[in-house]
Amino acid sequence: MLKSFILRNHCNNLTNVVRSSLVRYNSSSSSSNSNNKNESTTNIKPKTAIVMLNLGGPAKPEDVEPFLTRLFSDRDIFKLPFQKWAGKFIAKRRSPAVRKLYEAIGGGSPIRMWTERQGTAMAQQLDRLSPSTAPHKFYIGFRYADPLIDETLDAMKHDGVERAIAFTQYPHFSCTTTGSSLNNLWKSLESKGMDSDFQWSIIDRWHLHDGFIDAVASKVSAALARYKVEAGKIGDQTEPVVVFSAHSLPMRTVERGDPYPNEVAATVAAVINKLGGENAPQHMLCWQSKVGPLPWLVPKTSDTIERLAKSGRNAIVVPIAFTSDHIETLSEIDIELQHLAKENGMKLLLRSESLNDDPKLTSALADIVLQHMKSGKSIQHHNQYKLKCPGCIDETGHYCRTIRNPIVL
Amino acid sequence: MLKSFILRNHCNNLTNVVRSSLVRYNSSSSSSNSNNKNESTTNIKPKTAIVMLNLGGPAKPEDVEPFLTRLFSDRDIFKLPFQKWAGKFIAKRRSPAVRKLYEAIGGGSPIRMWTERQGTAMAQQLDRLSPSTAPHKFYIGFRYADPLIDETLDAMKHDGVERAIAFTQYPHFSCTTTGSSLNNLWKSLESKGMDSDFQWSIIDRWHLHDGFIDAVASKVSAALARYKVEAGKIGDQTEPVVVFSAHSLPMRTVERGDPYPNEVAATVAAVINKLGGENAPQHMLCWQSKVGPLPWLVPKTSDTIERLAKSGRNAIVVPIAFTSDHIETLSEIDIELQHLAKENGMKLLLRSESLNDDPKLTSALADIVLQHMKSGKSIQHHNQYKLKCPGCIDETGHYCRTIRNPIVL
Repeated sequence: MLKSFILRNHCNNLTNVVRSSLVRYNSSSSSSNSNNKNESTTNIKPKTAIVMLNLGGPAKPEDVEPFLTRLFSDRDIFKLPFQKWAGKFIAKRRSPAVRKLYEAIGGGSPIRMWTERQGTAMAQQLDRLSPSTAPHKFYIGFRYADPLIDETLDAMKHDGVERAIAFTQYPHFSCTTTGSSLNNLWKSLESKGMDSDFQWSIIDRWHLHDGFIDAVASKVSAALARYKVEAGKIGDQTEPVVVFSAHSLPMRTVERGDPYPNEVAATVAAVINKLGGENAPQHMLCWQSKVGPLPWLVPKTSDTIERLAKSGRNAIVVPIAFTSDHIETLSEIDIELQHLAKENGMKLLLRSESLNDDPKLTSALADIVLQHMKSGKSIQHHNQYKLKCPGCIDETGHYCRTIRNPIVL
Repeated sequence: MLKSFILRNHCNNLTNVVRSSLVRYNSSSSSSNSNNKNESTTNIKPKTAIVMLNLGGPAKPEDVEPFLTRLFSDRDIFKLPFQKWAGKFIAKRRSPAVRKLYEAIGGGSPIRMWTERQGTAMAQQLDRLSPSTAPHKFYIGFRYADPLIDETLDAMKHDGVERAIAFTQYPHFSCTTTGSSLNNLWKSLESKGMDSDFQWSIIDRWHLHDGFIDAVASKVSAALARYKVEAGKIGDQTEPVVVFSAHSLPMRTVERGDPYPNEVAATVAAVINKLGGENAPQHMLCWQSKVGPLPWLVPKTSDTIERLAKSGRNAIVVPIAFTSDHIETLSEIDIELQHLAKENGMKLLLRSESLNDDPKLTSALADIVLQHMKSGKSIQHHNQYKLKCPGCIDETGHYCRTIRNPIVL
């Protein structure tokens, strides 16, 4: 369905916007490691390094297969027999179709561009807000795309970093996201013999930070205002359903005790509270991007949109578990879901904007780091971090829920 | 397992406490309808009736089969072929075992006793706090046990009630609980020709009311203090995991869009926030009381306790989705789960007390009604109430998400 839709070229506007952003981004990132671009602090030994962890995304078509190979080789997400071989095989088979999806959104993922901008604004604010820990320098450590954590650690050592904060860019903790990134970080430090090079603390979740909640609520409010205008144009009086949509998770991961679904639900409740509590717009929480035949979290966003369409309702989809645009917003919601909604007779489907480089988000990121640095005894990590999922089946058993060379106050 | 445990008489203390409560309760409830016992307002026409909706429970062994028959006949929960016959058949087959469970906790469910006490305290406070809407009188409308809603409506008519608030005693909305009770209320009004006898508004969820959150947080704090003492006695230094436990729900109900799991998660987040946020004790949300072979919400409370026990952790179980003690606390947690924990080597498992007649709860109930009455245009119901689950398969289609003869301000 998606393929045919792309062929019908319904997404030209969007594609152009994203393409021009990527062109801007690529032209400013000629150095091999984006970490060098934190200009305000370049050439000065950073007193505080902030390592922004995220999944990353392929910047250009030829990056798709290496990206997918790393993803399908990650045993924190998929446990496959003969994983090294199977991961490569699945990645190779899927790459052509995934490349087409990226082509339709401008050729690559904008996640590195947005992370650069977020990091730059965050570090500038921190230098102003917290002179005693300045200069602050952000580094990017992606799990499946450049800059990978190995490269990031080299850059940090080269800069003479001593004190580092591993700051997940996933607001909610899941073993498959932040868990995987932190496992990867500790393993990488160990394999590079860098175990004692940096003193670490972790920001492992921030799903209820007031600035983050406020940033999302503002985007939803803006979308509601936009809805009013757009619905007015077509003479539609229907109240929209606000459909919060987060990336889904296999039920077997949920069954082990992964905190992600409950933390996402808590974020939604906090956003709704900001939007008026029991007078807030009608809303739901749904889950998107399931792959494979096994049960994942439900209800699916696509099923819900189809059903709402059939019952005569309109919707505003709010991406809730990532902060930046990515293939799940630009392709899955903006192209695929829009098409599904129209096919089923929905008159108006809007998506609230991703946070991207919204100043409310970058101020929140700075405040999260600031509060973390001020938090005294809890600075090493959130108290939940060391609660291993009761049903955990991680075979390595040594990395998850640990922290290397933690800072002591 | 449970049966053998009961035979080993490990639960004598608990049984005696509950039995003595039930004796006190039975001696004070000789009238056929508890609704007559709201003494502060007896013989005065109530200006505001508050109908406390809940599932109810069998008060004595011979009530078990009728209770189960109503439960298994409820198509808002179970959709069985030849339901009238099948519901009776399943109830008959299950009754002997369920009667034994009730025998082990004193012979019957204490839910009516607790609801009486909650209602009495709530109505007294409302008379004081809101003289303009006094006298307030509470009525109990159970779904599967006496007093059933039919009987309650007769009592209300007899008392000359004109303005009524349907106040669910389930803090979180599910189609299988509050939805079923409200469906039942509207159907009952229709079948009795009472559609225009009372002017209604609904309190259909209150999972984030600050007084409720505070009441739960206080019980958890008390349990943590108790844990410290008990752990000290056995020389155990382990930090406990706080395991919030809610009644589970079939995944096919979740898939339709039932808001229950997310509302429960929101309550847990709010309680944890009260207990110190990121410095609060380690915690999880689990789901208990699954029946049948189909998938329900996970992780299961029992699996989690078993796994925590095997990994050397202790636990405090916090019942989170009901306000009063019932078979799921007194039998399933206090007997069955305790046994499971011991069997798997857990050194200490405590349960935080149910809210029952805690003044913090009854003050919260009064405040919820007060805020509801003051809430102006939103007084009829929560804005979410009319959002039908997108995947709803209710065949009647006329009752759910409606309100009969709503009060207009």
